[in-house]
Amino acid sequence: MLGATNLSDDSRAPLLIHSVADLRRWRRNALMAGKTVGMVPTMGALHDGHLNLVRRARTSCDLVVVCIYVNPSQFAPHEDLDQYPRTLQQDIALLGGSAKDAARQTDASATGCLADVVFAPSNESVYPDGITTVRKDQRGAFVEVLGLSHQMEGVTRPHFFRGVATIVTKLINLVQPDRVFFGQKDAQQCVVVRSLIRNLCLPVEMTVVETTREQDGLAMSSRNRYLTAEERQPAIALYKALRRAQTAYLEGERRRSALMELANAEISAAPNVSLEYLSLAHPRTLDELDNIGEDGAIISGAIRMPSARLIDNLLLGCEL
Amino acid sequence: MLGATNLSDDSRAPLLIHSVADLRRWRRNALMAGKTVGMVPTMGALHDGHLNLVRRARTSCDLVVVCIYVNPSQFAPHEDLDQYPRTLQQDIALLGGSAKDAARQTDASATGCLADVVFAPSNESVYPDGITTVRKDQRGAFVEVLGLSHQMEGVTRPHFFRGVATIVTKLINLVQPDRVFFGQKDAQQCVVVRSLIRNLCLPVEMTVVETTREQDGLAMSSRNRYLTAEERQPAIALYKALRRAQTAYLEGERRRSALMELANAEISAAPNVSLEYLSLAHPRTLDELDNIGEDGAIISGAIRMPSARLIDNLLLGCEL
Repeated sequence: MLGATNLSDDSRAPLLIHSVADLRRWRRNALMAGKTVGMVPTMGALHDGHLNLVRRARTSCDLVVVCIYVNPSQFAPHEDLDQYPRTLQQDIALLGGSAKDAARQTDASATGCLADVVFAPSNESVYPDGITTVRKDQRGAFVEVLGLSHQMEGVTRPHFFRGVATIVTKLINLVQPDRVFFGQKDAQQCVVVRSLIRNLCLPVEMTVVETTREQDGLAMSSRNRYLTAEERQPAIALYKALRRAQTAYLEGERRRSALMELANAEISAAPNVSLEYLSLAHPRTLDELDNIGEDGAIISGAIRMPSARLIDNLLLGCEL
Repeated sequence: MLGATNLSDDSRAPLLIHSVADLRRWRRNALMAGKTVGMVPTMGALHDGHLNLVRRARTSCDLVVVCIYVNPSQFAPHEDLDQYPRTLQQDIALLGGSAKDAARQTDASATGCLADVVFAPSNESVYPDGITTVRKDQRGAFVEVLGLSHQMEGVTRPHFFRGVATIVTKLINLVQPDRVFFGQKDAQQCVVVRSLIRNLCLPVEMTVVETTREQDGLAMSSRNRYLTAEERQPAIALYKALRRAQTAYLEGERRRSALMELANAEISAAPNVSLEYLSLAHPRTLDELDNIGEDGAIISGAIRMPSARLIDNLLLGCEL
């Protein structure tokens, strides 16, 4: 079924693989054929931000695998695991560039299939001992990245990066990609995964792709669809706050106090927006900075609106 | 330096590799040459138990990598990390079958090199963010196998299997072996690593090799060299205790109470021996059993002698 000739499918639908055995067979054929493989791990509900990751993967790898898996271990019991959007058929259409929606939302349809494989494993495939969001009842292997998981997003989501590190390790071991692609929008995730790859000696390269934004600057996110019509406009307050700080940084400001004051002012002025945190952190250690030094900084934050929690970040003189 | 023609060395000394870059180059060449690779992870201080693992690897893999690395993260601050024997040159001689000692202790010298590669990484190679035995100061990625790490050996060594799971994950990612080989003597370690491989979806097979024993039955261990002359004979009390229980099991006894009574009696009678624990556990869940069912059981224990702590186990109607 998955012969060596079927590595890439030009019928405008990516190959959909659910089972580990099929994936391993496909990967072995890719290896035998001397093809490089790029991997884009996602939780589905794809938007143009994801598609830009896939496009980037396409430029540097012979074959592209998009993982679509809503990973329970990165959700806490009170979070939105059950409500998280699951839109596999629509996602596949976007990646194949064959559906009407895809033609509207992306130019994939003009260039054939964006992805060669969609890997959508079952929970049993990736958590053979089962998975629950209740930490004390969890069984099996879990990966933690110490020192980078407790601050920023880790304050309100202390379970989150353990879940991310665990599923990314599993997916890398399954797909065995030459290169993985992550979006800058989840900046702390990028820092954690880069440390994970280095520390677990995973034989894979990592590329961080800049955040894709709506026309008004709102960072694309699968959770944006939770926003009501009234919330949509004030949702850009976080981006505007980060931009104000970035502008000051580019004009020479290096002091945390001054940058934070500018950002806070922007967010205070927005209706229906409650600030969860603003962070000015070192790009590798994630230590909070009083002043930005030569390593630069990540300025990031999270806001809560009635219908959604949103995050965003900008890089000040650094890369991830 | 590490050309494709130099995958295996017939000069009776294994290729000694310290750096990750050299190892990756060697591995790529092995892959290109279509050779399968077996990995035997050790902490060095090799004895015939290790060499039997290497011999087994040799029978089922084209090329054999022996890792020699004393892993700090599986030691607690009060344990014997500094004292742990480090005998790299002697270990290499044993694996090459070229030293006089090797000729006496093993028949490797009659058949050429036992191992093709000795991979002896630096701490910096495997713990790029540094490593300390003080858990709260640790940084970087660590792997835990939940549900299998807290009982038996995990009671007195709660840090141990996290350290083992972490280093085994790193070594598998570095060597990328087709098959790994572990000794049954560390039974709980075998159960933990099997779960690790399954749960992290590591693309590797695992073989457990039965315990190698001295003529009187003492399980070979690098820590046996800590034993004084007076301690050597009573050190076999644990093995004798497990054997008495095994004999009763083979005669039909299934009750924990009866098997433990037999084993305890043997250990109580030995001088200088203090029992730390005896366990009768399910071979996959490690749950303690009141009666042995159709899945069989691991009977295991640890004793403390003035100069060393020793462990041993036997399998009752099961495999690891």
